[in-house]
Amino acid sequence: MGINNTAHTEQNIRLIKDYLNKQSLVQGLVIRQDNHDKQDLIESLAKRQHQAEIHQLVNRLHPSDIANLLEQLPPQQRDIVWQHIDKNHIGSVLLELSDNLRQALLVTLESDELIKIVSHLDSDEIADLILDLPEHVTEDLLSSLPEHQRLDVESTLRFPEDTVGAWMEYDIPVVRENISLDVVLCYLRKKGSIPDSSDRLIVVDDSGQFKGILLVGTLLVMNGESLVTDVMQTDVSVFHTNDSAEDAAHDFERYELIIAPVINSHGKLVGVLRVSSLMDLMNASSQRKFLAQAGVSKDENLFDPFLNSARNRWPWIALNLFIVLIATRVIDHFETTITGMVALAALLPITANIGGNSGNQVVALVIRGLALKQLERKHLPRLFLKEFLVASTNGLMWGSITGILILIFYGNTSLSIVILLSMLFTMILSAMVGVSVPLLLKKMNQDPVLGSSVIITGFTDTMGFLIFLGLATLVLN
Amino acid sequence: MGINNTAHTEQNIRLIKDYLNKQSLVQGLVIRQDNHDKQDLIESLAKRQHQAEIHQLVNRLHPSDIANLLEQLPPQQRDIVWQHIDKNHIGSVLLELSDNLRQALLVTLESDELIKIVSHLDSDEIADLILDLPEHVTEDLLSSLPEHQRLDVESTLRFPEDTVGAWMEYDIPVVRENISLDVVLCYLRKKGSIPDSSDRLIVVDDSGQFKGILLVGTLLVMNGESLVTDVMQTDVSVFHTNDSAEDAAHDFERYELIIAPVINSHGKLVGVLRVSSLMDLMNASSQRKFLAQAGVSKDENLFDPFLNSARNRWPWIALNLFIVLIATRVIDHFETTITGMVALAALLPITANIGGNSGNQVVALVIRGLALKQLERKHLPRLFLKEFLVASTNGLMWGSITGILILIFYGNTSLSIVILLSMLFTMILSAMVGVSVPLLLKKMNQDPVLGSSVIITGFTDTMGFLIFLGLATLVLN
Repeated sequence: MGINNTAHTEQNIRLIKDYLNKQSLVQGLVIRQDNHDKQDLIESLAKRQHQAEIHQLVNRLHPSDIANLLEQLPPQQRDIVWQHIDKNHIGSVLLELSDNLRQALLVTLESDELIKIVSHLDSDEIADLILDLPEHVTEDLLSSLPEHQRLDVESTLRFPEDTVGAWMEYDIPVVRENISLDVVLCYLRKKGSIPDSSDRLIVVDDSGQFKGILLVGTLLVMNGESLVTDVMQTDVSVFHTNDSAEDAAHDFERYELIIAPVINSHGKLVGVLRVSSLMDLMNASSQRKFLAQAGVSKDENLFDPFLNSARNRWPWIALNLFIVLIATRVIDHFETTITGMVALAALLPITANIGGNSGNQVVALVIRGLALKQLERKHLPRLFLKEFLVASTNGLMWGSITGILILIFYGNTSLSIVILLSMLFTMILSAMVGVSVPLLLKKMNQDPVLGSSVIITGFTDTMGFLIFLGLATLVLN
Repeated sequence: MGINNTAHTEQNIRLIKDYLNKQSLVQGLVIRQDNHDKQDLIESLAKRQHQAEIHQLVNRLHPSDIANLLEQLPPQQRDIVWQHIDKNHIGSVLLELSDNLRQALLVTLESDELIKIVSHLDSDEIADLILDLPEHVTEDLLSSLPEHQRLDVESTLRFPEDTVGAWMEYDIPVVRENISLDVVLCYLRKKGSIPDSSDRLIVVDDSGQFKGILLVGTLLVMNGESLVTDVMQTDVSVFHTNDSAEDAAHDFERYELIIAPVINSHGKLVGVLRVSSLMDLMNASSQRKFLAQAGVSKDENLFDPFLNSARNRWPWIALNLFIVLIATRVIDHFETTITGMVALAALLPITANIGGNSGNQVVALVIRGLALKQLERKHLPRLFLKEFLVASTNGLMWGSITGILILIFYGNTSLSIVILLSMLFTMILSAMVGVSVPLLLKKMNQDPVLGSSVIITGFTDTMGFLIFLGLATLVLN
C-alpha cells in the first residue's frame, strides 16, 4: 500500500475532524428541531454528505494513522470513524491501537465479522489480536483458518511475549540452496515481486535447515548458472526462537540489520525477524519503562475511563503509603527531641528529599547500565567506590551550603552541623542503596525499573528522618 | 562486513577479558621481579603472546562490539584494547562510543592519525566526530578531505541536531528517470552490488529533482526496455532536511520504512534517511528521557571520573534543594500548631509524598501523550475532568484508609479527618498541576521531561505541607 506524505496525511486528518465537528453540529440541530420536517430532510442530507466524505477520507489514510486518529477522538466521534473503516483495513488498525482501546473496540465486533477481518492478516498479526478476544471467539476464529496458518498462529501463541518466537513473522522469502540463480529469477518473476522491503532471500536445504542468505544484488550481477549455495553469504546474524526479543532488538540496532532468519533448536528455519517489528518492541518497552518509573504500571490511554485509570495507579500509591507510614513511625519515635526544638520539624524534609533525589539519579544510571549490559560483577567494587566519592563530594558541598543557610535562618551552629552531617550520611547511604536495589531486583528476576524508585525513595525518607533526628538528639540535647 | 553470531561474539569478548586479566597478572610479576633477568624475558614473551591474541580477537569483533567492550573495561585495560584496534576500524568504534568516552579517547590521537582514521568514514559520520574535536584539528581535517566530501560534512554540520538534515546520509543509490531498466541493470552490474541493505533505488530527473522510487524487484520482473519513469513508484514517504528527526523516526516506525529520500526546500534530492540511524536516534532519545526523568541531565558513563559525575548531577540537586527550602519555610510558619500537637510533625510527610507520587504519574502520562501527539488543545477540558475524577477517587479511597490507620495509632478523630481532607485536596491539586506543567513547559518550548518531575514534587511538597498544617490549624486548635 502506498504511503502519503506527512503533510498530506495531516491535512486529511484535519478534514476528517472538521466533518466530524460539522456532523455533531448538524446532529445537534436535528435533535432540537425534529418537528420541522423539511429542515429535517436538509440536515439529514447534509449529514449523509459528510458521512460519505468521512468514509472516503478515513480509508485513504494508512492504518496506523487511522489508529492514531481513533486514539485522539472523544468516544462519540471515535465511534463514527470506527464505523467507516473498510473491513479489509480494520485488522491492521486494531493491531496499531493501544491495548485498552483495542479491547474496547473488539467487543463491538461479531464473531463472523472478526473472521472476515482476520482473513486479511498474517499469522503473527492474528496471534497478536487473539490474546484480546474472549475464549469462545478465539476457538471459532482458529477453526476458520487454513490448516497451515492455524498451526503458525498456535505456535506464535506458545512463545513467551519476550522471546524472538513471539515477534517473528512467517511470510519468509525463502529459496533452496541447490538451484541456480536463473531458477531463482524465474521463480521471482512468476511471483511478480520480491517479498516486501527486503534485499535478501533466505537459503535452506531440502530438509528446511537454514543455510545462508542470498542478496538480491547477487541475482543481478552474478552469472545465472551459478548455484545459490556457491554465492550465498553464510556469515550472518541468526536468532533462535527462544532468544530474548529485547536483545535481538539491540543486535538489530548495533549491527544495522533489516531482516534476519529465525531458527528453532534443530537449526530449522521457522521465520524471520523484521526491523519494523523490533522498532515497535523497542518503542513499547521504552514507553513502558518511562511510565513505570513514574509509577504507572500498565499501558494507560489518556482518555481511558477514569475508574480504570484510578485502579491502574493503585499499586504504587499503596506501596508509597505503606513506606511513608513507616517513616512517620520513625519520626514519632523522636517526639521529645522535636518538642525540645520545633525548628527540627520544619527541617525534616530536607535530608529525605535530597537523599531521595540523588538516590534516584544513581538508580537510573545503574538500570541503564544493566540494560546496556555494561555492568559486570567484578566492576561492582569500582562502581560502589565511584558512587561513594560522588555522594561524599555532593553531600559535603550541598550539605555545607544548606548548613550556611540554616545558620543564617536560625543562628544555631549545632543545628547547621547536624544538617550538614545528616545530608552527607543520607546521600552516601542512598547512593549505596541506589546501586544495590536495581542489582538485587535483577538478581531476583524482577524488572528493576518497576519498583527501584519507590523502594529507594521510601528507604531514603525513613533513613533520612532517622539520621537527621538521631543526630539532632545526640548533638542538640 | 560479516556479522558473527551473538554467542560467538560473547565468547570472543570473554577470551579478550581473560587475556587482559592474565596480562595484568604478568605485568604485576614483571614489576616485582625486574632484577631477575631470565624470568623477565619469559614474562615479556608471554606478554607479547597475549598482546598478539588480544589484537587478533579485538579486530575480529564488530566495531559496535569493540565500543561496548571499551565501555565495560576499567581505564587501564581499556587503554590496552584501544591500542590494538586497527586504524580502519577506529573511526566506526569512535562513532559507537558514549560522548564522554569518545572525547577522552579522541584527545589521545594526533592530527595526522585522525585524518587517516577519518578517511574510512562517510560524510555524515565525519560530521558526528568533528563536533568532539578541538577547533584547530577540525580545520586540518576538513582541508584534508576531497572537495565534495568537505561540502557534505559542512552541510551536515549546519543542520540543527534534531532535524532530518543532521541524520541523513549522502551515499545515495540514485538513478535518472529517463533511462531504461536495462541501463540501470548494466550500471548496477558495473558497480558490482546494490548499495547496502536496500531494496530500492531513488529516481531523480536531470536537474536532481526527486521523482520517485524504483524497487529492485521491478528490475527483476519487468521488461528491460521499459523506462524508469514508467515503472517507478511516486506515492512514497519523503522527508525535508528541516523536518523534525524524531517525527521522522515515528514515521519510519509507523509506516515500516527502511530507507527514505530527503529533499531540500527546492525539491532536490540531497540524501537518504536509513532505519538504522533512526533506531539509534530513538534509542538515544529514550535513554536521555529515562535519565532526565531521574535528574541526570547529561549522558553519563557508569565509570566516568567521579568529579564529572558529581558535577553532572548538580542542577537537579540544586533545584530540589531550593524547592525543599521553600517547603521548610512553610512548615516553620506553623510552629505554634506543631508545638500544640507534635504528632503533626510525624504525619507531615504523608500528604506531600502521596501527592508527589500521584502527580508524577499524571506528568508521565501527559508527557507521553504529548510525544505521541495524542493531546490537542480542545481535549484539555476532558483531560482535566478525567484527572480530577481519578484524583478525587484515589484521594477519597487512600485518604480514608490512612485516616482509619491514624485513628488506630492516635485515637484522634479530628486528626483523621484532617489527614483525609488534606490527602484529597493535595492529590486533586497535584493532578491539576501534573497536567498543566508539561503543557506549559511545552508551550515555552522547553523539554517537558527535563524539569516536570522536580517542579511537580516541589510544588506538591510545599502545598501538601501548607494544606495539611493549615487544615490542622483550623480544625485542631
